[in-house]
Amino acid sequence: MFEMTIQPRFSETDAIGHVSNTVMPTWFETARDPIFSILHPNMVIDGWPVIIAHIDVDYLRQIHLGHGVNITTQVEKVGTKSLTVYHEAWQQGRLAASGRAVLVYYDYELGETVAIPDKIKIELEKNITVVPITKTK
Amino acid sequence: MFEMTIQPRFSETDAIGHVSNTVMPTWFETARDPIFSILHPNMVIDGWPVIIAHIDVDYLRQIHLGHGVNITTQVEKVGTKSLTVYHEAWQQGRLAASGRAVLVYYDYELGETVAIPDKIKIELEKNITVVPITKTK
Amino acid sequence: MFEMTIQPRFSETDAIGHVSNTVMPTWFETARDPIFSILHPNMVIDGWPVIIAHIDVDYLRQIHLGHGVNITTQVEKVGTKSLTVYHEAWQQGRLAASGRAVLVYYDYELGETVAIPDKIKIELEKNITVVPITKTK
Amino acid sequence: MFEMTIQPRFSETDAIGHVSNTVMPTWFETARDPIFSILHPNMVIDGWPVIIAHIDVDYLRQIHLGHGVNITTQVEKVGTKSLTVYHEAWQQGRLAASGRAVLVYYDYELGETVAIPDKIKIELEKNITVVPITKTK
Repeated sequence: MFEMTIQPRFSETDAIGHVSNTVMPTWFETARDPIFSILHPNMVIDGWPVIIAHIDVDYLRQIHLGHGVNITTQVEKVGTKSLTVYHEAWQQGRLAASGRAVLVYYDYELGETVAIPDKIKIELEKNITVVPITKTK
Repeated sequence: MFEMTIQPRFSETDAIGHVSNTVMPTWFETARDPIFSILHPNMVIDGWPVIIAHIDVDYLRQIHLGHGVNITTQVEKVGTKSLTVYHEAWQQGRLAASGRAVLVYYDYELGETVAIPDKIKIELEKNITVVPITKTK
Repeated sequence: MFEMTIQPRFSETDAIGHVSNTVMPTWFETARDPIFSILHPNMVIDGWPVIIAHIDVDYLRQIHLGHGVNITTQVEKVGTKSLTVYHEAWQQGRLAASGRAVLVYYDYELGETVAIPDKIKIELEKNITVVPITKTK
Repeated sequence: MFEMTIQPRFSETDAIGHVSNTVMPTWFETARDPIFSILHPNMVIDGWPVIIAHIDVDYLRQIHLGHGVNITTQVEKVGTKSLTVYHEAWQQGRLAASGRAVLVYYDYELGETVAIPDKIKIELEKNITVVPITKTK
């Protein structure tokens, strides 16, 4: 399981007074950096091997300015060509949002999906979490 | 069905060269303005009666700079306290992304969900689309 | 003079209840699209010939949701290697913000600034506005 | 002098491959949090006592993914009703951008600028830096 802490920015709030719901996908994307490091260790844009096929977010509580948000990131499932990542956002000890992203291994030059190389697949599978996450908190 | 056209902004692209996947939830939110007008006709922030419980997005094609993106917005389902909105994003005649948002009727002063008033429910139900959308395009 | 109209998005507001001041540079950048078309007619990212050296914004009035914002864009000055662009943002007939951007002609492959080609310089100079703008509104 | 470190996010890059110039004002705003704490110690939105009158940014180098950016924030000048804040953004030991923000003390209820209370003014003045910053790095 990977973790990072984000300080909400004033510009990330909206007129309701809390962090805008539209911000969560940007936080979850940046929390996937350790996953990208596995998929593409040199992190160079040329040859970037992955596209995003799906995201979803469930919003459970408002997120406020002034307190850090802890984002957890886990590999949930690894398929032949794709993987599912699961995130949770916690603020002041409470789960505020959770969500998933489906990433597809992709060859930009061929313009098509390709199989995840075995070496990378093994590395991803090492990071699969088997116990339901929320329950264990 | 509601429609709007968005011109992708340079700042909305990312290093891959296309519009960032994180932008779609902001476009879909702004495309829900006509839904907010039904839910809260005066559009004043005080007394804003709705919170977002869920979003999801399926990404089908890259979105490029230089061509407008047509966003369609439809009411899919109206429940006692919540509604589901369905969006599609089309660029150059091709479906690039689709997604849903679940909005919950909410009293910020009470801090709890409340039933959607009948008058608003009827107005929302008038806008339900019954035929699968993608098929009819 | 170039003009475009932007509808403020809910996600562009902040907790104060108005459009965040951090949004204006993104609006002004997108309003420079016609300038980019002159500088780089094919608008393809490869060979993009310009970097930004400076921006400034003066904020005169709050910008609200619910009303379009008219952005005007003018070439103010053209030098050997750089140009200055001037923007104004008007909402409901009142000037809400103004600002400048200094763009430098740049060869990304050489990694250095280069002279603006004469043909482009002439095209830019055609668009210089000589009368102070705010006064004429 | 106040300091914070920001990790550039993938969604903050643009098609050129570096961090978008439009991101810097959002980073500088979040780097002003310690200034806001002096101006408005309870940090509650109701009664927020300041509006932004001006920002400017000079861009000196591209900012890349993969390396933290150190943002420094200093009070440069304190007037009767306004103050000027100066920021620098450093990545990998090099100055990448600098800029200023002018904040005006403001009573949202009266709808007009007001004098900065003496107690706050003294606190701000304690943080004025007298030596040119870039030189001392």
